[in-house]
Amino acid sequence: MIGRLNHVAIAVPDLAAATHLYGETLGAEVSAPTDLPEHGVTTVFVVLPNTKIELLHPLGADSPIAKFLERNPKGGIHHLCYEVDDILAARDRLVAAGLRVLGDGEPRIGAHGKPVLFLHPADLVGTLTEIEQV
Amino acid sequence: MIGRLNHVAIAVPDLAAATHLYGETLGAEVSAPTDLPEHGVTTVFVVLPNTKIELLHPLGADSPIAKFLERNPKGGIHHLCYEVDDILAARDRLVAAGLRVLGDGEPRIGAHGKPVLFLHPADLVGTLTEIEQV
Repeated sequence: MIGRLNHVAIAVPDLAAATHLYGETLGAEVSAPTDLPEHGVTTVFVVLPNTKIELLHPLGADSPIAKFLERNPKGGIHHLCYEVDDILAARDRLVAAGLRVLGDGEPRIGAHGKPVLFLHPADLVGTLTEIEQV
Repeated sequence: MIGRLNHVAIAVPDLAAATHLYGETLGAEVSAPTDLPEHGVTTVFVVLPNTKIELLHPLGADSPIAKFLERNPKGGIHHLCYEVDDILAARDRLVAAGLRVLGDGEPRIGAHGKPVLFLHPADLVGTLTEIEQV
């Protein structure tokens, strides 16, 4: 069911420093920062040949990654995102298997303009997991 | 400098349960478990169209992931691995930029039979990072 690994999201306390790290020190292609106020983050994409790393920095007072950075002040991997063909069919299969969908269980439009859902990390080996319909 | 994301490694407390989760519930292709006694892990590969997830379970008394699982009893993402063309050139560039290489600083042969190095997570936004020469 799951397809490509769409991205690995890393929450970062200092976006300029993390962008320099990935772009200059590690020598990857990095995007300009993009504010996504409806998601409470500013993102920089690290473009690799086969997938992306998304650097996430809190934006605004209610950022969903603010608590993560309080617990992990140096930053850290926040979630993995897998692509699926049909997000409702994927959700129903996962719920039937006992996995918990976060929020109200309905897909919302994610940072890439596509329907996404997040799954409870305790049901996925301690890994916050996003599925995105592509 | 860095190329493909070779894999995401997830430490798992119950390898059979995690293999079932990725293979049956998430519907991905999974390998048979492989014991790597020289690395202190048993691994299962989750084969995605563009990269791999490696499920790591402790093997033997001195497993390098035992402490991680003590701190994260449900499991969790352990490290990311990026491919590089020349591991010594990559190491020298990263060390010159102030990043710390774990161990004695010399590449060792990793789980795929290729030279690898691990970089200190505190220097990489809280992310334990492996580089592998391909």
